Amino acid sequence: MMQQLFVIKIGGNIVDDDLALNSFLKDFASISAPKILVHGGGKIATKIGNQLGIQSSYINGRRITDAATIDLVTMVYGGLVNKKIVAKLQSLQCNAIGLTGADANLIHAAKRPVKEIDYGFAGDIDAGSVDAHTAEVFLSNNLTLVFAPLTHDGDGQILNTNADTIASALAISLSKVYDVRLIYCFEKQGVLENVEDENSVINLITKEKYRQLINDKKLFEGILPKIDNAFAAIDNGVKEVLIGHANDLLQNVTANTSGTLIK
Amino acid sequence: MMQQLFVIKIGGNIVDDDLALNSFLKDFASISAPKILVHGGGKIATKIGNQLGIQSSYINGRRITDAATIDLVTMVYGGLVNKKIVAKLQSLQCNAIGLTGADANLIHAAKRPVKEIDYGFAGDIDAGSVDAHTAEVFLSNNLTLVFAPLTHDGDGQILNTNADTIASALAISLSKVYDVRLIYCFEKQGVLENVEDENSVINLITKEKYRQLINDKKLFEGILPKIDNAFAAIDNGVKEVLIGHANDLLQNVTANTSGTLIK
Repeated sequence: MMQQLFVIKIGGNIVDDDLALNSFLKDFASISAPKILVHGGGKIATKIGNQLGIQSSYINGRRITDAATIDLVTMVYGGLVNKKIVAKLQSLQCNAIGLTGADANLIHAAKRPVKEIDYGFAGDIDAGSVDAHTAEVFLSNNLTLVFAPLTHDGDGQILNTNADTIASALAISLSKVYDVRLIYCFEKQGVLENVEDENSVINLITKEKYRQLINDKKLFEGILPKIDNAFAAIDNGVKEVLIGHANDLLQNVTANTSGTLIK
Repeated sequence: MMQQLFVIKIGGNIVDDDLALNSFLKDFASISAPKILVHGGGKIATKIGNQLGIQSSYINGRRITDAATIDLVTMVYGGLVNKKIVAKLQSLQCNAIGLTGADANLIHAAKRPVKEIDYGFAGDIDAGSVDAHTAEVFLSNNLTLVFAPLTHDGDGQILNTNADTIASALAISLSKVYDVRLIYCFEKQGVLENVEDENSVINLITKEKYRQLINDKKLFEGILPKIDNAFAAIDNGVKEVLIGHANDLLQNVTANTSGTLIK
C-alpha cells in the first residue's frame, strides 16, 4: 500500500479572511500525513491593484492578465499571501515551503493561445506539466508544499494559473507514488441537492449517481465543472476527491463525516 | 577535498537595472558548481510603497520596518523580485528555487530588540540561524537557491533581514560541507586604495595587509564593515571572500583577475 498524500485547495473565501485562514491553517497543520496546499489569490490583489492604478479586467469571468497584472499577482500571490501562509504554518510546527511553478521548475505551463480572447499571461497546465520527482524529494524530507497559483513558461515568463487546475495536476501526477486524496474547499458545505439548502449535502457521488443527478436536473450548474474535474482526477489515478467547506472538512479529514466524497 | 560552493550577493544596483540583472544572471547561470544567490531589495519597494502610500523611514541609514512595510517588502522582495529572478534563471537552464528564511525554516531570526531605536520587523541572524542540512538537500538535488532578504521568527512573523548578513550566514554555515567562496557584488570594482580611482583596486587583502592599510588610513571608511564581515566569514570557515563589481567579477569567477580577494 502506498503512503497517503493530501492535496488541498483553498480559495478567496479563506485567503481573504484572517480568522478563517488561521483556523484553516491550524487544522491543516495537524494533518500528520504528507500534504500540499494550493491557495488561490483572493480579493487582496484587486485591492492592491486598485491602489496602484492597475485595473482588473475580466472576460467571461476570467481575469485578463496583462503585463501590469502579472507583476501584481506575482507580488501578491507569490509574495504576500504565500509567505504569510508559510510563516504561519512554521509557527504551527508545520515545515512549509512556499512555491510557484517556476521554483525548481515544478510546474511548467504553456501560455494560453490567443483565439477569440487574449487572456494575456495565463498559463495552461496538465499533469504532465508537473515534476513529480522533485515534489517527492521535498515531501520525503518532511516538507509541506504551499503553492501560489503561478507557473512559468520556461522562457522567463511567470504565468497566472488556475489554482483548481494546479491542485488536480499535482494530485494526478503524484498519484503514481502516493494514495492521493484531493480536497477542494469552497464556500458551501458540499455538493448540494438544493443549492439554497446547506443541509442538502450529497455525501457520496459515484459516476452512476452523477449521471442520475444530471438526468434529474438536480445540480446547480456552477458545480458541474468541479465535479467533472474531480472525476477526471479519479480517472487519472487520484484515489478520491472531497468537496466541501474548510471549517469542518479538515477536522474530519479521514472520517468522511462532512462534504461530498467523489469516487 | 570538499566540493566548491558559490554564495553570491547582489544589491540594488543590479536588481533595479533590467539590463544589468539579465547580464548578471547569464554569468551566474553559467557557473557549473553548486551556487546560492542572495538578492537585496532595491528601490522598487520604495517606488511601489510610495504608490501605496507607505512611507519609507530610515534611522542611521537603516530602514524602519513597520507593519505596512513588512507586507510591502514581503510582496516586492519575496514575490516580484525573487520570482522574476527564478523564472529568468529557469530560462537559462539553471534550476533555481526562490526562498525566504521562512521557507523550509531555512533561516530563523530574532526580531531586533528595541533599545534606543525600534527597527520594527527587522531580523537579526547568525550562522547558527541556518538549517544547513536542508540547504544541502536542495543543493545536492541540483537546485540553485535564490534568497530574498527575508527571514522569520518562528512565531508566524516575516522579518526584514540584511542581505549581506544572509549571505555570510549561509556561507559560514555551509562551509562545514563545502569549500565556500563568498562573493559580494557592489557598485565598485573592488576595495580601492583611492576611492576616487576605480583603477586602484587592491587585488588581495590578508589580515596583515588589512592592518597596514588601516594604519596608513588608506581605506574609505564605508568599506570597513564589508571587510570586517569578510574576515569574520573567513575566521568561521569560509575559504575566501571576493568583493567587486558584478560585470567582470563573475566572468572570471575562478581566475581572480578582478575584484578584491580577501583570505
